[in-house]
Amino acid sequence: MSTVTLSHMAHSLAVLSHDHEKYAALLRPQLPPCVDLLQHGSDPADIATDDVTILLGEPDLLVQTIAHCDKLMWCQSAWAGNRPLLSLTKQNYILTSAKGIYAAQMREYVFAYLLYFARNIGGFTATESNHQTAWQSPEFSYLSGTTLGILGAGNIAQSLVPVAQSFGMKVIGVNTSGQTVSGFNAMYTLDEIEQFASQCNALVNLLPDTPATENIISHNVLNAMKQNSLLINAGRGVAIDDDALLQSLNNNHLKGAVLDVFRQEPLPEAHPFWQHPKIIVTHHTAALSKTEDVANLFIQNLERFLANQQMQHVCDFARGY
Amino acid sequence: MSTVTLSHMAHSLAVLSHDHEKYAALLRPQLPPCVDLLQHGSDPADIATDDVTILLGEPDLLVQTIAHCDKLMWCQSAWAGNRPLLSLTKQNYILTSAKGIYAAQMREYVFAYLLYFARNIGGFTATESNHQTAWQSPEFSYLSGTTLGILGAGNIAQSLVPVAQSFGMKVIGVNTSGQTVSGFNAMYTLDEIEQFASQCNALVNLLPDTPATENIISHNVLNAMKQNSLLINAGRGVAIDDDALLQSLNNNHLKGAVLDVFRQEPLPEAHPFWQHPKIIVTHHTAALSKTEDVANLFIQNLERFLANQQMQHVCDFARGY
Repeated sequence: MSTVTLSHMAHSLAVLSHDHEKYAALLRPQLPPCVDLLQHGSDPADIATDDVTILLGEPDLLVQTIAHCDKLMWCQSAWAGNRPLLSLTKQNYILTSAKGIYAAQMREYVFAYLLYFARNIGGFTATESNHQTAWQSPEFSYLSGTTLGILGAGNIAQSLVPVAQSFGMKVIGVNTSGQTVSGFNAMYTLDEIEQFASQCNALVNLLPDTPATENIISHNVLNAMKQNSLLINAGRGVAIDDDALLQSLNNNHLKGAVLDVFRQEPLPEAHPFWQHPKIIVTHHTAALSKTEDVANLFIQNLERFLANQQMQHVCDFARGY
Repeated sequence: MSTVTLSHMAHSLAVLSHDHEKYAALLRPQLPPCVDLLQHGSDPADIATDDVTILLGEPDLLVQTIAHCDKLMWCQSAWAGNRPLLSLTKQNYILTSAKGIYAAQMREYVFAYLLYFARNIGGFTATESNHQTAWQSPEFSYLSGTTLGILGAGNIAQSLVPVAQSFGMKVIGVNTSGQTVSGFNAMYTLDEIEQFASQCNALVNLLPDTPATENIISHNVLNAMKQNSLLINAGRGVAIDDDALLQSLNNNHLKGAVLDVFRQEPLPEAHPFWQHPKIIVTHHTAALSKTEDVANLFIQNLERFLANQQMQHVCDFARGY
């Protein structure tokens, strides 16, 4: 358990979260005397906006009340993507996002589905559920020697690299600068995305939700990808041109798509992604905000906040992430 | 392409294989003048047993003719497990097995199924094939922080270690000596197998087919495994007590079993493994002998054989593997 350095100023903390009771139980024993847990709840209307100096919670709730928190100095979000808060005019506070707690989950998600398609697990399980008992071998392939392309080069993307290397894969990436990132065999800019896509046996999107990345997985990018390649979207739903994706799957250009995020969530019942035989829908579960992990991050950031030190995962309102 | 050192003695090579034509095409351009490709075929009766000094092929065919090859000096098997040949009385030749070419395939097989169960991919795909379109999250878990137990500590087992570590898993193993192996967090002897099993979230069998390993995955071992753990058998079918496994799955002690090898192959149609909802049958495909890989190994070993150097993966008739 962390201990927090005493500060001269007193702070009022409000937790606005679907898991507020769990957060309160986890945080209470760890808060220093100068931080008062003023209130916790899941209804934005209940927050005492006049007094709060520190907020912790989910952006879908915070967005409804944060503009009225005039004394707010710092808000710790429980989400990695904070577009709802970043697009508000209120920006006179420090916003920190819940990054760094998703890497272990995300790398398992990505490799689970890369291997599911490579080894054709669906083909093997289907022979059994169809009551076939013939000794045969559904076709399958290998990751070794193939190229994994990652849109994004942040800490989650980087956590995929050692795993990919241990499977004998080449890893290439796209970031805004195109500058080299340790472990990546090559790095491309957003302008070079088609050249990048043409080398990918599998393309994983981890880009944050910014205007520059909307529809970035376009018809041309999907077309540039290798025949029989795989798309995994665990970044943001708006990154994909949905119609172009359906066309690419229906033309048998792409082997499959694993989609965790969508333009509209929950994914509407009538959406063609649900029943498409080459699409797996994973209900925005690739990397879940675990209350314990967010609470630990909050306590670490609280220590830094009270000591006037640089905090972890500070959002940049100008850049939009 | 390798070049082979000239030797003074002339050799006669016979290839006895289901893929004999592919082997012949691959080997011909690489054989040195002192090695004559005498014949190649898939019928053991056709082999000119009087002349052959070198054999290459599959044990199921070789076992039918090798006893009559009186001049035989060396046999390169295309399989990793060579019990059919090792149990013959004829042992006055060097037998080399096709190891070292399976590691990349096997590590993908093992992690494909570890992740399939951890991330509950079957749960996600089932919601779609049942035409459920509710936004929900089938339960799943993570590899990170769990313990992978490997029966065996040879080159295939060792190839799993860096991958397991990159996922944040602990790796423990069993070998005959119990001596430390690089990368393993702990090593146990066969006598300590229940103690070993009690720590495993997943147990992978890679042990060769020796009398000492028959039924080693016994009722007691399965019982010792953690509640909700996973069994993967990619070693030999005889390693598992089949009835004890079914009992453990039916009692909901084990979460599932992925079986690549069986006491009888092909697995008989009436065998309960086929239709068991918690068992995935993978038709002995975890690591396939690829003709190209075996041909390369043969050429490498031929160089060493002709130069009187220590060859790769020499079997020990006394130890039985």
